[in-house]
Amino acid sequence: MTINILFAAKSERWATYEAPLSRALSQAGLEFELRPDFPPAEVDYIIYAPNSSLQDFRPYTRLKAVLNLWAGVEDVVQNETLKVPLTRMVDHGLTQGMVEWVTGHVLRHHLGMDAHILGQDGQWRTAVPPLAEDRPVTILGMGALGQACAAALTGLGFPVSGWSRSAKTVPQVATYHGYDGLQTALSTAQILVLLLPDTPVTTDILNADTLAELPRGAIVINPGRGPLIDDNALIAALDSGQLAHATLDVFRVEPLPADHPFWAHPKITVTPHIASATREGTASQTIAENIRRGEAGEPFLHVVDRALGY
Amino acid sequence: MTINILFAAKSERWATYEAPLSRALSQAGLEFELRPDFPPAEVDYIIYAPNSSLQDFRPYTRLKAVLNLWAGVEDVVQNETLKVPLTRMVDHGLTQGMVEWVTGHVLRHHLGMDAHILGQDGQWRTAVPPLAEDRPVTILGMGALGQACAAALTGLGFPVSGWSRSAKTVPQVATYHGYDGLQTALSTAQILVLLLPDTPVTTDILNADTLAELPRGAIVINPGRGPLIDDNALIAALDSGQLAHATLDVFRVEPLPADHPFWAHPKITVTPHIASATREGTASQTIAENIRRGEAGEPFLHVVDRALGY
Repeated sequence: MTINILFAAKSERWATYEAPLSRALSQAGLEFELRPDFPPAEVDYIIYAPNSSLQDFRPYTRLKAVLNLWAGVEDVVQNETLKVPLTRMVDHGLTQGMVEWVTGHVLRHHLGMDAHILGQDGQWRTAVPPLAEDRPVTILGMGALGQACAAALTGLGFPVSGWSRSAKTVPQVATYHGYDGLQTALSTAQILVLLLPDTPVTTDILNADTLAELPRGAIVINPGRGPLIDDNALIAALDSGQLAHATLDVFRVEPLPADHPFWAHPKITVTPHIASATREGTASQTIAENIRRGEAGEPFLHVVDRALGY
Repeated sequence: MTINILFAAKSERWATYEAPLSRALSQAGLEFELRPDFPPAEVDYIIYAPNSSLQDFRPYTRLKAVLNLWAGVEDVVQNETLKVPLTRMVDHGLTQGMVEWVTGHVLRHHLGMDAHILGQDGQWRTAVPPLAEDRPVTILGMGALGQACAAALTGLGFPVSGWSRSAKTVPQVATYHGYDGLQTALSTAQILVLLLPDTPVTTDILNADTLAELPRGAIVINPGRGPLIDDNALIAALDSGQLAHATLDVFRVEPLPADHPFWAHPKITVTPHIASATREGTASQTIAENIRRGEAGEPFLHVVDRALGY
C-alpha cells in the first residue's frame, strides 16, 4: 500500500528536498507519495522542521512517526499533541560539517590567524604559536557531535577534555561529568567548545561563575545552542580580558538582530548558524532509512527521549 | 675526548638554543663543549643556520658534519667549500607545526571564514560550504611535510592529490609525477598547497601556464618556498579571477618589504614565515641524535643529497 509522507517545513525547503527525498525513498524500495499537503487523517509519516506552521498533531490520526529534519528538537519536544515517536536528524553531512567547522575555528584561534587576516599592514611579526600538543581544548557535550569533534582534534594533537551530564568513556579524551567535573574541565580549557543540547539543565551553563573557572585569556566557540551562554556575562568576560575571543554560531534569537551588541564587539565573531547544516542528500537517506524501518517493523534510529529532551 | 661543537647562527638564536641544546647533548650521553666561537681547526661539528656569517668552511679541517637548524638548505647546498655531510632539520615540532598551519588555512578557505572575520556587518548570510569530501586539495611535494599534511587532510575527509618529482605511493592520496602528472594534479585542485623544495627544477613551477591549469576560482597556499611562484603571474591570476585567493608564508625576499604589492592585495594574505618554525626543544634532540650517531660511527639522519639539492 502506498505510504503517504507529508513534508512539513518552510516552502523553500520543499524546493531543495523534493528531489533528493524522492530519490532516497525510491532507493529504499518504498512505494510512497511525498507531498507538502495531505488531508491529516491520511498521513503516515511527517518529515518535519520545528519552524513549520504545523504545530497541532492531533488531526494526524494514523501517524506513525515524526522525522525531524534538524538535529535540534527543543522547539518540538514539549509539544503535547505529539504522541508518536519523534526522531532527530543524525546525518553524516551534519556531523561532518560540524567537525570541519569546529576544527577550522579551533585551528584559527590556536594559530592566531585573525592577526594576519585583519592586519595586512606590512609589519613582519614572527611570533609562533605553541604546538597543538600544548593547547588544551575542552568540549562540553560528548554526544555524537562532541565525540566526532574530539576525535578530529586529538588526531591533530590537541589534548582534549570532554564534559557531559552522565559519565562517559571516550578514546583519547579526558572525560568529566557532574558539577565538580565541570570545574575541572573548564580549569584547563584554553579553547572551550560548546556542543551541549539545549535543556533546562544546560541553559546559561556558561555564566559569570563558570566563565571565571576558565584560564585567563581563553577562547569560547559555540556551535551548540544559543541559550547555553549568558550573553551579558560573556560580554563582561570579554571586556575584562578573562576571555580573549568568542566565536558564536548560534543565538537566543536567530537571525541575530543587526543591532545586537555581538555583531559590533571586536572580540566576537558571529557566524550565521552554519556550523552544522543538514545537507539534503545525506539527510534524505537518513529519513528514508527510518521510514523503511517503520514499515518493516524495525526500531527507528535516533528516537528522542522526550523526558531528557534530546 | 671532548667533542667541540660550534653554534653558527645569529646571536639571538644562541640565546634561545644554548640551554635546550646543552640539555639534549647531555641526555644523549655526549661529552662536549658547545660554543658560538672556536678556533676553526678545533671544531668537530657545526650547528648551522644558512644566514650565519660563516660561509667558508675550508678552515674547519677536522669537521665531521654540518647540522642545519633549518629544513631549507638552498642557501648552503651549493657552497663548494663544504665537503662533509650536511643534514637537514627534520623535527617533530617543525612537521607538526606545518601540519597545523596547512590544515588550518585549508579549512579557513574551505569554510570561507574570511567573509565572517572581515564582515561583521549585521548581515545574516547563511550560505553553507560543501563538505570536505567535495573539496579536492592538491599538494605539490610529497616529502615528509607533504605526506604529513596529506594524512591530516585525508583524515578530515578531503580528497587529496599529491605530486612529486619521482613516483611515490602514499596511503589515501592520488599521486602523480612528471609533467603530465602535474597537469592532472592541478586540474582538480580547488585548493593547492605548495610544499616543494627550492631547486632549479621547481623555481617558478607556479607560473602563468600552470596557474591556467587550475580550476577557475582556486585557492593557492604556499608554506613551501618563495621562488616556487612567479609573483607577477600570481597577481595576474588573482586580478583576472582565475585564482580566488592566495595565502603566502614564504617569499623571494624575507622579511617581505612593506611596500611589496602582496601586502596590499585584497586577495593575498601574507603570513611571516611562521608555518613551520623550528621549535628549540625538539630540534635540539634531533641534532644531539645526529652527533651521537656521528660519534658512534652510525649513519647520519636526514643527509642532504647535494646533487638533488635537498
